[in-house]
Amino acid sequence: MSERVVLAYSGGLDTSVAIGWIAEETGAEVVAVAVDVGQGGEDLETIRKRAIACGAVEAVVADARDEYAQQYCLPALQANALYQDRYPLVSALSRPLIVKHLVEAAKYHGATTVSHGCTGKGNDQVRFEVGIGALSPDLKVIAPVRDYAWTREKAIAWAEDRNLPIDVNKRSPYSVDQNVWGRAVETGFLEDIWNGPIEDVYSYTEDPTVARDPEELVITFDKGVPVAIDGETVTVLQAIQELNRRAGAHGVGRIDMVENRLVGIKSREVYEAPGAIALITAHQELENVTLERDLGRFKRQVEQRWTELVYDGLWFSPLKDALDNFVAGTQEHVTGDVRVVLHGGRAVVTGRRSEQSLYDFNLATYDEGDSFDQSLAKGFIQLWGLPSKIAAKRDLKNQWTGA
Amino acid sequence: MSERVVLAYSGGLDTSVAIGWIAEETGAEVVAVAVDVGQGGEDLETIRKRAIACGAVEAVVADARDEYAQQYCLPALQANALYQDRYPLVSALSRPLIVKHLVEAAKYHGATTVSHGCTGKGNDQVRFEVGIGALSPDLKVIAPVRDYAWTREKAIAWAEDRNLPIDVNKRSPYSVDQNVWGRAVETGFLEDIWNGPIEDVYSYTEDPTVARDPEELVITFDKGVPVAIDGETVTVLQAIQELNRRAGAHGVGRIDMVENRLVGIKSREVYEAPGAIALITAHQELENVTLERDLGRFKRQVEQRWTELVYDGLWFSPLKDALDNFVAGTQEHVTGDVRVVLHGGRAVVTGRRSEQSLYDFNLATYDEGDSFDQSLAKGFIQLWGLPSKIAAKRDLKNQWTGA
Amino acid sequence: MSERVVLAYSGGLDTSVAIGWIAEETGAEVVAVAVDVGQGGEDLETIRKRAIACGAVEAVVADARDEYAQQYCLPALQANALYQDRYPLVSALSRPLIVKHLVEAAKYHGATTVSHGCTGKGNDQVRFEVGIGALSPDLKVIAPVRDYAWTREKAIAWAEDRNLPIDVNKRSPYSVDQNVWGRAVETGFLEDIWNGPIEDVYSYTEDPTVARDPEELVITFDKGVPVAIDGETVTVLQAIQELNRRAGAHGVGRIDMVENRLVGIKSREVYEAPGAIALITAHQELENVTLERDLGRFKRQVEQRWTELVYDGLWFSPLKDALDNFVAGTQEHVTGDVRVVLHGGRAVVTGRRSEQSLYDFNLATYDEGDSFDQSLAKGFIQLWGLPSKIAAKRDLKNQWTGA
Amino acid sequence: MSERVVLAYSGGLDTSVAIGWIAEETGAEVVAVAVDVGQGGEDLETIRKRAIACGAVEAVVADARDEYAQQYCLPALQANALYQDRYPLVSALSRPLIVKHLVEAAKYHGATTVSHGCTGKGNDQVRFEVGIGALSPDLKVIAPVRDYAWTREKAIAWAEDRNLPIDVNKRSPYSVDQNVWGRAVETGFLEDIWNGPIEDVYSYTEDPTVARDPEELVITFDKGVPVAIDGETVTVLQAIQELNRRAGAHGVGRIDMVENRLVGIKSREVYEAPGAIALITAHQELENVTLERDLGRFKRQVEQRWTELVYDGLWFSPLKDALDNFVAGTQEHVTGDVRVVLHGGRAVVTGRRSEQSLYDFNLATYDEGDSFDQSLAKGFIQLWGLPSKIAAKRDLKNQWTGA
Repeated sequence: MSERVVLAYSGGLDTSVAIGWIAEETGAEVVAVAVDVGQGGEDLETIRKRAIACGAVEAVVADARDEYAQQYCLPALQANALYQDRYPLVSALSRPLIVKHLVEAAKYHGATTVSHGCTGKGNDQVRFEVGIGALSPDLKVIAPVRDYAWTREKAIAWAEDRNLPIDVNKRSPYSVDQNVWGRAVETGFLEDIWNGPIEDVYSYTEDPTVARDPEELVITFDKGVPVAIDGETVTVLQAIQELNRRAGAHGVGRIDMVENRLVGIKSREVYEAPGAIALITAHQELENVTLERDLGRFKRQVEQRWTELVYDGLWFSPLKDALDNFVAGTQEHVTGDVRVVLHGGRAVVTGRRSEQSLYDFNLATYDEGDSFDQSLAKGFIQLWGLPSKIAAKRDLKNQWTGA
Repeated sequence: MSERVVLAYSGGLDTSVAIGWIAEETGAEVVAVAVDVGQGGEDLETIRKRAIACGAVEAVVADARDEYAQQYCLPALQANALYQDRYPLVSALSRPLIVKHLVEAAKYHGATTVSHGCTGKGNDQVRFEVGIGALSPDLKVIAPVRDYAWTREKAIAWAEDRNLPIDVNKRSPYSVDQNVWGRAVETGFLEDIWNGPIEDVYSYTEDPTVARDPEELVITFDKGVPVAIDGETVTVLQAIQELNRRAGAHGVGRIDMVENRLVGIKSREVYEAPGAIALITAHQELENVTLERDLGRFKRQVEQRWTELVYDGLWFSPLKDALDNFVAGTQEHVTGDVRVVLHGGRAVVTGRRSEQSLYDFNLATYDEGDSFDQSLAKGFIQLWGLPSKIAAKRDLKNQWTGA
Repeated sequence: MSERVVLAYSGGLDTSVAIGWIAEETGAEVVAVAVDVGQGGEDLETIRKRAIACGAVEAVVADARDEYAQQYCLPALQANALYQDRYPLVSALSRPLIVKHLVEAAKYHGATTVSHGCTGKGNDQVRFEVGIGALSPDLKVIAPVRDYAWTREKAIAWAEDRNLPIDVNKRSPYSVDQNVWGRAVETGFLEDIWNGPIEDVYSYTEDPTVARDPEELVITFDKGVPVAIDGETVTVLQAIQELNRRAGAHGVGRIDMVENRLVGIKSREVYEAPGAIALITAHQELENVTLERDLGRFKRQVEQRWTELVYDGLWFSPLKDALDNFVAGTQEHVTGDVRVVLHGGRAVVTGRRSEQSLYDFNLATYDEGDSFDQSLAKGFIQLWGLPSKIAAKRDLKNQWTGA
Repeated sequence: MSERVVLAYSGGLDTSVAIGWIAEETGAEVVAVAVDVGQGGEDLETIRKRAIACGAVEAVVADARDEYAQQYCLPALQANALYQDRYPLVSALSRPLIVKHLVEAAKYHGATTVSHGCTGKGNDQVRFEVGIGALSPDLKVIAPVRDYAWTREKAIAWAEDRNLPIDVNKRSPYSVDQNVWGRAVETGFLEDIWNGPIEDVYSYTEDPTVARDPEELVITFDKGVPVAIDGETVTVLQAIQELNRRAGAHGVGRIDMVENRLVGIKSREVYEAPGAIALITAHQELENVTLERDLGRFKRQVEQRWTELVYDGLWFSPLKDALDNFVAGTQEHVTGDVRVVLHGGRAVVTGRRSEQSLYDFNLATYDEGDSFDQSLAKGFIQLWGLPSKIAAKRDLKNQWTGA
C-alpha cells in the first residue's frame, strides 16, 4: 500500500496544484482536508469535488464553524486576546483547529505525513508544525511552498500543463486569510508602511467615515459566554456572525499595525474583526464590573502571555493549558448585560448591569445612602505610604550628609 | 509666630471656605496655593485675590502648565499609561505636581501643615498625602472635608455668614476635575452604571456621531517626545493643546468605565482626553515600528505596573523611579512620523516612517527583493516546538498506560 | 440573651486575661476557640479547662492538624511558597485556618464579634481581620492588645487580681509562633539586625555546625502530594512531621532575614522550618524534571504572587482562588521519587526519577544513542537572534550617521 | 589575500585540530583567539604557542579576568541571577565576553568569519552566534563540531596524522567549562539523573560533609559592588577569587539540577560556584535591608527575565539593555556590610548593617522606643480587605439565591 499524505486544502491554486505535485514527487496518495471555519466563499462540496479532480484519493470536508467558535474563539474572547493590544488573533486561532482535523484525518486514513501550503517566513508554518508535533509527534511534514520554493508562476504553469479545473486568471491583488473571527490582508503596496490602506482592502466592514446613525445593542453574557443579543438567544457562532454583520456595517474592527512575527521580523498587517472587537470590548467592561481588582490586574498579565503563546504557535502546550485553567476560573461571575453603541468605527459601552456586579452603589455614591466610612482612609493612607516615606527619610538624610 | 498651613486652593467654594475655617479652627495662618495645570476657567490673578479676600495671609499662584506637560504628561505618554487599558491618568498625574508645589510653598513659608479638600473615599486623598509624606515626611495634613465631614450645605452657610466673595448659587450638577491631559466627570445619574452619559457631560470633545469629514495630521516624535505636528515645531504642552482641540473636535478620547479605586471600591467614571488618546495611539504604533519584540513585550508589563503605581498615589516612590529608568531607556529610538486620521471618535494610525525603524522591507516583502532565507524556518520550528512535543509524547504514553 | 464574642484562644497569658476583660468591658459572653495546628505544648483538654476557669461560657478545641497540612501546607508546597525567596509562610498559613474555625464557631454559637490577641504593627491582625471579613462580612472584631493598648504588665496585674490559673512568671524571652509547618521567633536582641541569632533561639532544629554523618532519604510525590518517605506511605501531616524530625536533626531550615511587612515596615525575623524546606527543595527539583520549560518559567511568577497574597492576608480572595486553579493544574505530572541528602543545615537533591519525566536521555546524552538532530540548530539560532541582529544593524547605522 | 577566520581557541584538542581543518577545508587563514576568564589551567603564552604550532597565522591571547568580573559577573550579581532559582549562569556569562573579543579580533585582523567549537545541542552555540550577529551582523560563522559532525575520535586521528603538539591521551571523563564565576561539569554517568555526583566531579569546592569549624567573614558593598572583605579593599575579581577559595573550602556553591536548555531539551548539570553563591546570598540580604518593598517585589520579576535572557543567549539585546538600566538604578543604596558564616556547604547571613538601611528600629521594636502608631492599622485593614469583602458578600448572596 502507498504512503499517504494529508494535505490542508483550501480549494485555491496553490493547494490544488500541491495535490498532484506531492503525488508525483513522493509517490504517495494525497488526502485533501478542507475545514470550514467561516471563511465564506465556495461551498464545501465544490471544494471536495475539485480536490478529487486534482488527483486526491480522498477529500474530507468539515463544517467546523461551531467547533471553531466555541473551542477557539470563545477562549480568546475570555482572555480578551489582543496581540500587541490590537490584533485579535484571527489566523492564529484557526490554525490549531485545522491541525486537529488534519491529525484526525491522518490517523483515520493511515497517513504518515501532513502537508501545508505556508511560506517559510510567516507564523502559520510554525502554528501548523508545532501543533502537529504536539498532537502526533511522529507525523512528518511537507511544506512545498517553503521547502521546494514553489511560486505562483510555477503553480500556474503546472495547472495549465495538466488542465486542472482551476481558474488561474482569477487573482486577487491581496493575500487574504479569513474566518468567522476576522480577516487578515496583506498586499504589496501596504508593505510600504507609510502607505495607508484603501477602501478596496476591506470586505468585512463598511467605511466608518460614511455618515450613518448610531446603532445600539445589548449583549448578554453568562459566565463569560455571549448568550444573547438584544434578548435573543444566540450560540457563540451566531453572536460572532451577527456582530460581524452589525458592527461591520459601522466599520468597527479595522486594524492597521506593524506586528512582531515569531520568525523575528516585523510585518505590516491589516485586519478586520468587527464581531471580535465588539465582543471583547463588551466582555472587558463586564469584567471591570464583576472581577475583583487584584484579579483584574493579574489577569492582564495572563492575557498577554496567553495571547503571545497562541500567536507563537503554542496552542497545544502545557503553559497554554495551565493559563486556560486560570482564565476559566475567572469567568464564573462574568454574567450580565452590556449595552454597546456602534458608530464611526467604534463599539462603545454605555451601560452595564449584572447580578454579579461588585460595583456597590452605596459605597460609591456621593449622594444620600453613602455607606462608606471615610474615617478609615487616614490609617490606610499612612500605612500605604509608609514604605515610600521611610525611603524618603533616607534620601533626605543622604542630602544632608552628602551621601 | 503663628503656625502656618499651606492649602491646595482651587478658587471654588470648598477651598475658599476652608481658608477661614482652618484659621478659626486651628489658629493658624493659611497660605493658599493655586497651580495652573491647564484646567482653564478663571485666571490666576482672580483666584489669588479671592484667596486673600477669604482670609489667606499669602496666596501663591503658579502657571505650571509646561512643567506639568513635560515632567508628568510626557512620562505617562512614554509609558502609554492607560489604567485598566482605558484611563490615561488625568487626575492621578496632576496630583504629584500639585504636591510638589505645596511642599515647596510649605518650606518657603515655614508651614508645618498642608491641607487639601479631598473626600475620604477617593484616590486623590491618597495621592496628596502619600506624595507629601514622600517629599517632606514631617509635614502634617488636614483634610477638612474628610476629617471634619464638611458638606456643600455647611460650606454655603459658612460662606454666606461671612460674606465671602463666592457665588454659592453657581452649581454644576457635575463633579469635575480637569487639566491639560484630560477631564474627569462624576455625577449622580452616572452612579447608576446602566445609565449612559448624555452630551451635556462633555466639554473637551464634540459629539462623535455628528457627521463631519475626517481630518489627517502627522505627529513627529524625537526619542519619544512629540516635537512637531504637521511639520510645525511644538512643545509638549502645545502638542497636547493642539490635539485636544483637533482630536476633540472629532469626539476622540471619550471614556466611560467602571474603575477599581485604590480605596477598595468600584466607581463609574467618565473621562475626556482627546490629546492624550491621540498621542498615546501614535506613540504606541511608533514603538511597534522601532522597539524590538522582546523589549516591546516586557515594556507592556512595566507600563501596567507604572500605571498602577501612579494611579495608586505612588508617584514619588522607589519603584516608580526605577520603572522610569526602564522606560526612559526604551525611548532612545522612538523617533519618526506617524500619520493619524481623526474621525468619529477615533484617532487611527494610517502610516508611520522612521529612520530608526526595525521594519525591514526586504525581509518582510513577498515581492521582488525578498532577502529572507526561508530554509532557516525548518530548524527553528523543530526546536521551538520541541518542549511541547516532548510533553505530548509523555501524554500519549500516559494514555496508553492509563496513567 | 447576651451578645457573644468568639475569641481566638491560645491558652497563654494574653488571651486568658482577654476572656475576662472582654466580658467585663462589653458585657458579652466569651466563647474561647483553640485550634491545634501542630504547635505542640499543652494538650487541648488542659487548654479547654483553663478557658472555662478564666470565665469563658464555652471553650471549643479542635485538632486541625490534618486539615492544616492538607488544605494549607500542601498548597504552599505546590506553590513552592517562599516569601522573599526565603520564608515558607509559617504564620501566614495558619491564620486563615484559625479564621475559618473562628467563623464557624461564631455561626454555631451565635456570636456577633470575633476577637484576637494581635498587636497593631504585625501582619497577623491583617490576616485575621481580612479573613474574617471575607468569610463573614458582618462579624465585628475586637483586638484588645491593639485597640486598648494592653501590655504584658497590665495583663499580669489583671491575672493576679483575679487569681486566674496562669503561671505569670513563666516568661520566655522570645516571642514565638509555631505550627507544624515551622516556627517564628522574635526577640529584643535580634531587633539589632547586626546581632546574630544564638543557639538558644532554636527549638525545631539542631545546630548544623555540629559534626554528624549525612543522612539520605527518598521522598515520593504523587501529583504534587508527598505520599511516601523511604517507601513508607505517609499522610501530608506525617510527611511534614517526619521531615521536621529528620531534617531538623541536621539543622535544615533555619532562616534569618529582614522582611517587608505588609504594614509598611521592615522587621527582622528568625524562622525554623526543616520539613517545609526539605519538601519544597524536593518538590522544586521534581518540577524541574516534569514541568515543561515555559510552564516552569511562568509558574515562578504565579508562585511569587501567590506567596505575596498569602503573606499579605489575602488567602480568601478571588485572585488567590484563581492562582490556586493555575497551580493545581500544573501538578498533574509532578509524580516521582526524589533522593535528598540531609547534612550541615542543607537538604540537597542528589537524584530524581519519574515516569512523568520530560528529561529524555536520548536527546540529552552526548554518548551513544544520541537522537538529537544537530542540524536543526542553525536555522533556530538565525531566527532566534534575528530581532537582536536587526536592532544591531540599526545601531551600527546610527554610529555611522551620528544619529 | 586569503580570507581569514577567527577561531575561539581553548588550547584543547578540538580547537587545536580545528585550526588546521578550517585552513584546509576553506583555504582561509586562521587567527586563534584565547581569552582568560579565570578558567585556570595553562598559561596564555603556552596556549598562544600551541595555536601557532597548530597552524594559526596569528594567535591573540587576552587576560580578560578583570573585564569579565566587572562587566559580566557584577551585573549578574546585581541581578541576583540564578537560572531556575539555582544556577548562577557560569558559562552563559563568559560567552558574550568571548564573543566581544572574537568580533574585535575579526575587525582588527580583517576576518569575515568566526568559528567556535560548540556542539549543536547546547546553549553555547546560540550564545556565540546570536552574540556575533548582534555585534557584527555581517560576520559568517563556522561550527565544525556541529556542522561537520566532528567527533573526538576524528580529532585524535587528525592530530596524530599531523603530529600536532597535543597530548591526545590526556582525557578527562568529564566535560568541563569553568571560569572565575564557577564551573560546569557534565559526564556520562550523570546523564542518568538518578545517579548522584561523586566527589571526583568537583574541583572548586571541598566536600561539605567533612567536619570543620565554621568561618565568619564580612563583605562590604558600595552601591551594589563588593568592595571589601573583612575590611580589606578588593576589586570585584579579587572578591570572587577570595570567596571561591574561602567558601569553596566549606563546600559552598555545589549545585545539581535538571535544567531547561534553550534548544528545547532538559539536561542534567552539576555546577560549583562558591564565590558567586556567597556573593549573591549576601547581596540579596543587603537588598532586603535597603530596597523598598514594592521595588524588591518587582525586581524579582526583572531578575528572572534578565537571567532567562542571558541564559538564552540574548546578552546583546535591547531588552537586556533596558533591564540593565532598571537594575543599575536599584543599586544606588545597596551599601553596607553583611556578615556571613561559611560552613557545611552553606553561606549564611547572620548580620547586616547599613547607613542606607530602611529597617527602622523604632518602628520595628516591640520594646521601649516603639514609635509605630498602632491605631492606624484598623483603617488600613478595612480598606485593604474591602475588595475581598465585597466579593465575599456577592458569593454569600449567590449561595442564598442558588446562583
